[in-house]
Amino acid sequence: MVFSPKQAMKFALQEAKKGIGWVEPNPPVGCVILDSDYHFLSSGYHEKYGMAHAEVNALKKIRDKEKLKGAHVFVTLEPCHHKGKTPPCSKTLAHYSIKSLTYGVEDPFTKTGGLDYLRQKGVTIIRSPDLQKELENLVAPFKFSFSNQKSFVSLKVASSLDGVVALENGKSQWITGEKAREHSHFLRASHSATLIGVNTFLKDNPRLNIRIDPFKDKKNKVIILDPEGKSFSLLPKSHLLNTHSPNQVIVCCFDNTKPHWEKNSISNLGVKTLFFKSYLSGTKDTKERKYFSLSALLKHFYQKEKIQSVLVEGGAFCLSQFLKEKVAQKLYLYMSPQIIGMGLRWSRDFTIQKLSDSCLLNSMTVQPIGNDFLIEGVFYTLTLK
Amino acid sequence: MVFSPKQAMKFALQEAKKGIGWVEPNPPVGCVILDSDYHFLSSGYHEKYGMAHAEVNALKKIRDKEKLKGAHVFVTLEPCHHKGKTPPCSKTLAHYSIKSLTYGVEDPFTKTGGLDYLRQKGVTIIRSPDLQKELENLVAPFKFSFSNQKSFVSLKVASSLDGVVALENGKSQWITGEKAREHSHFLRASHSATLIGVNTFLKDNPRLNIRIDPFKDKKNKVIILDPEGKSFSLLPKSHLLNTHSPNQVIVCCFDNTKPHWEKNSISNLGVKTLFFKSYLSGTKDTKERKYFSLSALLKHFYQKEKIQSVLVEGGAFCLSQFLKEKVAQKLYLYMSPQIIGMGLRWSRDFTIQKLSDSCLLNSMTVQPIGNDFLIEGVFYTLTLK
Repeated sequence: MVFSPKQAMKFALQEAKKGIGWVEPNPPVGCVILDSDYHFLSSGYHEKYGMAHAEVNALKKIRDKEKLKGAHVFVTLEPCHHKGKTPPCSKTLAHYSIKSLTYGVEDPFTKTGGLDYLRQKGVTIIRSPDLQKELENLVAPFKFSFSNQKSFVSLKVASSLDGVVALENGKSQWITGEKAREHSHFLRASHSATLIGVNTFLKDNPRLNIRIDPFKDKKNKVIILDPEGKSFSLLPKSHLLNTHSPNQVIVCCFDNTKPHWEKNSISNLGVKTLFFKSYLSGTKDTKERKYFSLSALLKHFYQKEKIQSVLVEGGAFCLSQFLKEKVAQKLYLYMSPQIIGMGLRWSRDFTIQKLSDSCLLNSMTVQPIGNDFLIEGVFYTLTLK
Repeated sequence: MVFSPKQAMKFALQEAKKGIGWVEPNPPVGCVILDSDYHFLSSGYHEKYGMAHAEVNALKKIRDKEKLKGAHVFVTLEPCHHKGKTPPCSKTLAHYSIKSLTYGVEDPFTKTGGLDYLRQKGVTIIRSPDLQKELENLVAPFKFSFSNQKSFVSLKVASSLDGVVALENGKSQWITGEKAREHSHFLRASHSATLIGVNTFLKDNPRLNIRIDPFKDKKNKVIILDPEGKSFSLLPKSHLLNTHSPNQVIVCCFDNTKPHWEKNSISNLGVKTLFFKSYLSGTKDTKERKYFSLSALLKHFYQKEKIQSVLVEGGAFCLSQFLKEKVAQKLYLYMSPQIIGMGLRWSRDFTIQKLSDSCLLNSMTVQPIGNDFLIEGVFYTLTLK
């Protein structure tokens, strides 16, 4: 079967996506190899952290290495050029007389040289003119966190068509359907940690584990933003500590809660408690309230806790803080085809003074999921350096 | 070029859509004719009320009528069998020795017999197994209004991702972009009348005319729901009476405003004023308020004013009344890729007591329009008899 370069890169992208949830802190990568006449030879992807890279997995499926003479290799990310847990892919590829290498996006991590190295070996290097948005999107958490040295943040919301998450009496269950809820477990699996505010923890006593195959055994971290240590009393008997081992749970508090924490049995639970300074949140026009510097937290999460990406699941106050501080990169909005009218809204704690201050999103996509649909968008504030 | 039956019906549907905005009170209809070997022969659509039907327009493009021997005809709606402004299409089709007729949906208006008549003439009659939703959607205003003897209602809303239409200070302009606003003029053109509540009239002093080609000269009716006759003072000097002749404007008031209306110059303006009884709206649990029986109004609109379809453009109170009384059939929700947070919501005057009372929509579709997207859905309350 003959592939066009665009088809080959699209297939490589599909292959790469199979690695989502398994390869972190590496990025997911896919590779497709065509022979000199653009006939399909093989494909592969980076399957698990520490294991073979996509290029190697694709190469090893080709028994007759003679076929690689004049071959065209498509890989979603620039091949590595350093020896890490596996040998550098640039050198592995150079070993065969391939004709061209088309890559999706640059790797900020690579000590550059892999592409130059291959070029010197006579390989034609092409940056894919196709699918750039999708290719960037695929590695966004990896690139963003590495370049900014802080965790990548996605907001997850499930609402009605009119932005409501619950009736005013708090009834909220089943706003979206089963398929959307299943997909939200995939989101958990594809982020390093799930984050909630303390009010959601106290009100819902949630499990926050991953309850879909093949990720059921995957251990995701959970972060609770709890300025005043209100979670301490529920924590020991919470569902969270049934579904997660204590060292997977991180509670973030203000500095001044430390005495309270020390007095409390919480200090012996094994739950990681992090203490941060408090800042005055909001402006003169809005209600002032002490809160964390989320930017400082996200730096800490990445640099000290090796958390590449955070999925913020609520509640409204917590989501609004991420919007207000402009530290979110991505929105996943599940929308249920219903109008609820009066009720609690997920963005109710976010306030702007003029319309031009609204949080804009770009690269919007919409896909149906069961009876609901999922709106994905990237906040304009996202800079992928 | 050879067409599959599905491709032919899809093309017929596209053709039919060209008539939207021009053929009312007839339904838009499209027709595709293939020869005995399924090669494309011609297509046509009902272009304007009173003019030739789709079948006739398709037939007349075929010079050599010999080619019609064994032909396959695809038409989005059952062919007519009565002599109206044009001869019955059933008989016109029977005149040629066509082999099969595939129709989209039944016509509630037809004195049935057209299909039987063709069947007796040896034509194979097939109800299209494809595209039924789209085909029904196309003629929904026509079928619904005829079957229920009241106007078909579409709600039009433009909001942010979180359901906000304006900041609390009322600033609302430019929530959606130019392309979406252009599309909303197409919606006006495709409905018999545009309806607003009196508060929107007083606050915005809107023009409500159709400002896109090729519909600029089309005269749409405008309805103002004005229980207490508050519009009377603005009406004579309103933008609405610059863009519309008085007889295109209908003001609906409570019976008891009649003396006020008679005393006022409004009675001499030429604007049609309709008086209706007032009803108590809302339940014990919600705020009670006198309002119209919208169902009674919609029957009147269809039966007395020949209004097949109504586009409700706001404001929030007015939209909510249509939701509350469950008299809307369709939702057009333009969504702008932004989060506004605190602000005025379009559904804020709609209240339910339990989630199962929410207004559900089905047959949802989402399409990008410029930077925004348009969500279309059909209310479950819609019954197409």
